Amino acid sequence: MSTAISPLAPKSYPEMPEIEGVAFATAEAGIKYKGRTDVLLAKLAEGTTVAGVFTKSKCSSAPVDWCRDIMSKGTARGLMVNSGNANAFTGKKGKSAVKLSAEIASKALGCAENEVFLASTGVIGEPLQAEKFEGVIAGLAALERPASWQEAAQAIMTTDTYPKVATVTVEFDDQSISLNGIAKGAGMIAPDMATMLSFLFTDAAISADVLQAILSGETDGSFNSITVDSDTSTSDTVLLFATGAAEKRGVAAVTSLEDPRVPVLKAAVGDLMQNLAQQIVRDGEGARKFVEVQVAGADSNASARTIALSIANSPLVKTAVAGEDANWGRVVMAVGKAGEPADRDKLAIWFGDVRVAVDGERDPDYSEAAASAVMQEEDIVIRVDLGLGDGSARVWTCDLTKEYVAINGDYRS
Amino acid sequence: MSTAISPLAPKSYPEMPEIEGVAFATAEAGIKYKGRTDVLLAKLAEGTTVAGVFTKSKCSSAPVDWCRDIMSKGTARGLMVNSGNANAFTGKKGKSAVKLSAEIASKALGCAENEVFLASTGVIGEPLQAEKFEGVIAGLAALERPASWQEAAQAIMTTDTYPKVATVTVEFDDQSISLNGIAKGAGMIAPDMATMLSFLFTDAAISADVLQAILSGETDGSFNSITVDSDTSTSDTVLLFATGAAEKRGVAAVTSLEDPRVPVLKAAVGDLMQNLAQQIVRDGEGARKFVEVQVAGADSNASARTIALSIANSPLVKTAVAGEDANWGRVVMAVGKAGEPADRDKLAIWFGDVRVAVDGERDPDYSEAAASAVMQEEDIVIRVDLGLGDGSARVWTCDLTKEYVAINGDYRS
Repeated sequence: MSTAISPLAPKSYPEMPEIEGVAFATAEAGIKYKGRTDVLLAKLAEGTTVAGVFTKSKCSSAPVDWCRDIMSKGTARGLMVNSGNANAFTGKKGKSAVKLSAEIASKALGCAENEVFLASTGVIGEPLQAEKFEGVIAGLAALERPASWQEAAQAIMTTDTYPKVATVTVEFDDQSISLNGIAKGAGMIAPDMATMLSFLFTDAAISADVLQAILSGETDGSFNSITVDSDTSTSDTVLLFATGAAEKRGVAAVTSLEDPRVPVLKAAVGDLMQNLAQQIVRDGEGARKFVEVQVAGADSNASARTIALSIANSPLVKTAVAGEDANWGRVVMAVGKAGEPADRDKLAIWFGDVRVAVDGERDPDYSEAAASAVMQEEDIVIRVDLGLGDGSARVWTCDLTKEYVAINGDYRS
Repeated sequence: MSTAISPLAPKSYPEMPEIEGVAFATAEAGIKYKGRTDVLLAKLAEGTTVAGVFTKSKCSSAPVDWCRDIMSKGTARGLMVNSGNANAFTGKKGKSAVKLSAEIASKALGCAENEVFLASTGVIGEPLQAEKFEGVIAGLAALERPASWQEAAQAIMTTDTYPKVATVTVEFDDQSISLNGIAKGAGMIAPDMATMLSFLFTDAAISADVLQAILSGETDGSFNSITVDSDTSTSDTVLLFATGAAEKRGVAAVTSLEDPRVPVLKAAVGDLMQNLAQQIVRDGEGARKFVEVQVAGADSNASARTIALSIANSPLVKTAVAGEDANWGRVVMAVGKAGEPADRDKLAIWFGDVRVAVDGERDPDYSEAAASAVMQEEDIVIRVDLGLGDGSARVWTCDLTKEYVAINGDYRS
């Protein structure tokens, strides 16, 4: 397994503000990895509301089922996440492991079992030995050694090469409201979620229904717009927690979608999610290039999105990017295979600012040197204009390298 | 570019019977490759009927457009195929190149332009210099040096590591009828065709409408059931020619789908196409393993097919196969992401004859050693039973290796 940090990793980490009502602790439960933390406990203040989006997989993991079940309550007091084992496709054993995990965490946190959200990431099909949490979680809840946001992000990593954190601050009633987030994910990443976990926290007071509407509304433009390998995990989970602690500071609760602060919150949550989503792509297994695919001039936004994903998921496009090869013919191929309205003779394609194809053929001013120079960049924009309508979409992906194959050809052993 | 022959290549070539009314010649036109043949001319007897299936790409190549246009006539006198340049996304230049190609070939063969079928495979977007055919084709048509079936298959190769030929003989009215075929393709291979060309020939007399029905009916179970990388080419073409020469031997023409010989012919064409399709997968770029994915117990055949393709196209499944890793959790993931009806707790999975998962969890008798032994084989069957209904499907794919990335990261240069 590759251990080097992705060359696309952020060069520095943001200063993460405190979010009142959220405290982390991490530990080594020895689920799979040795010599590193693999379990995260978050203690959440009383009155914390919660919203979630989950994998659309028909084979969702036991913790995903658990979260879906308890989500209707709309409140949360704790979050426990482990890495190393996904507790997916584990049948009755998986349900028991989830029950035991919730029991252990709720006892330690002094709350009800159905106020503890759970997530697991790692190998599919191996029973999770939840009893391993027993010893470590009781100690964690005392928060004698609270963990930083980066440490929290570190504990939930699998093949990630760096922890992913992000923060956004907005102004509300002359007060600052911060939103912090952590995420993990590097492979099995595709729209409709991925082996991707992300947990977002704010101290604003937001009712559960408003919180859910905000989260659901911002998912398509962020986590559902990234793809590393078109594969979708059984375990994808994004949870957004609002502790409400800011109410004490005089920030009134947001309880209706008509509240004028909702658009501000939506934008902030969207920014935070897009930031974390892009960090996941930048840590795509074996990635050496970050690619933004822009599609414009499509019949509709949905059509543009299908075409953008067809380009972003094409192994031939992705290997060409890896080889720094300005092989725009493969972009044509990917547009063609998407099955969406397209007119070959109206198609134009750019790599960066260099137009390589127009009106259904190679650009008359095509310069191999200029196109190749773009491909040597670390961040590459592939832009397609279909010339048909107003539909547009933007998705992010990475290249497909030999390292991806190496990492995934030997993951379990 | 890799030059070693695929380890999955057939160990021997079949004896190809003569098909009366078909003669090949090949030449070096110097389109892209040096020191190898890159153009194939087939001369077809008067009265030859033809049927075809083509890519569903919205950006189909100029030769595909040409073939579609002249197909309505139902007769053919010649076929010219070049490798090295796909003449796709070449705009007006592409149309002119096709016109010039047909002109050159028809002049040489002494037939009408619209009786010459054309196919091109290779790089997309570069104008095809059809004038290069001028000198070589005139000589070819004299058939002074007729080419063998293997030589014909050789001339149309791109990243293929071996020529693909197959033959089937059936009995008709106490006479033998043979069907021979050639094919090319190694990458950009996916259902609904691929950079896949295949040309099939028989000396039976079969009316064009019957021929088309037979060809169309057998495509789904053969060429549309293979995938190397989920990418679909702009140029996919399968043509089936019937010269009718067997009529002279007393084999009456087949002119109706009610003819009792039609099922025999269908089976023979199906066998031939499946054989060639599997040869393409066995020459999948970088392939070291041949994988048959069988899905049973699905809601419908269509649903089974979608699930089978989801497994066969999953980069994570394909890299696990490359790593000889019995990672059945990724098969669960691929079933889950397909979006088709599936019940996690009824799912069973086999690698070869080894059942690895049943009733939604790891098989109680699971043996890593037994599962790993299967993965070390060259040919691997991945079988999934959904336990829901009677729908089933079977598709073929190969593993995803570092060599695939190497071949495709540097194809144009």
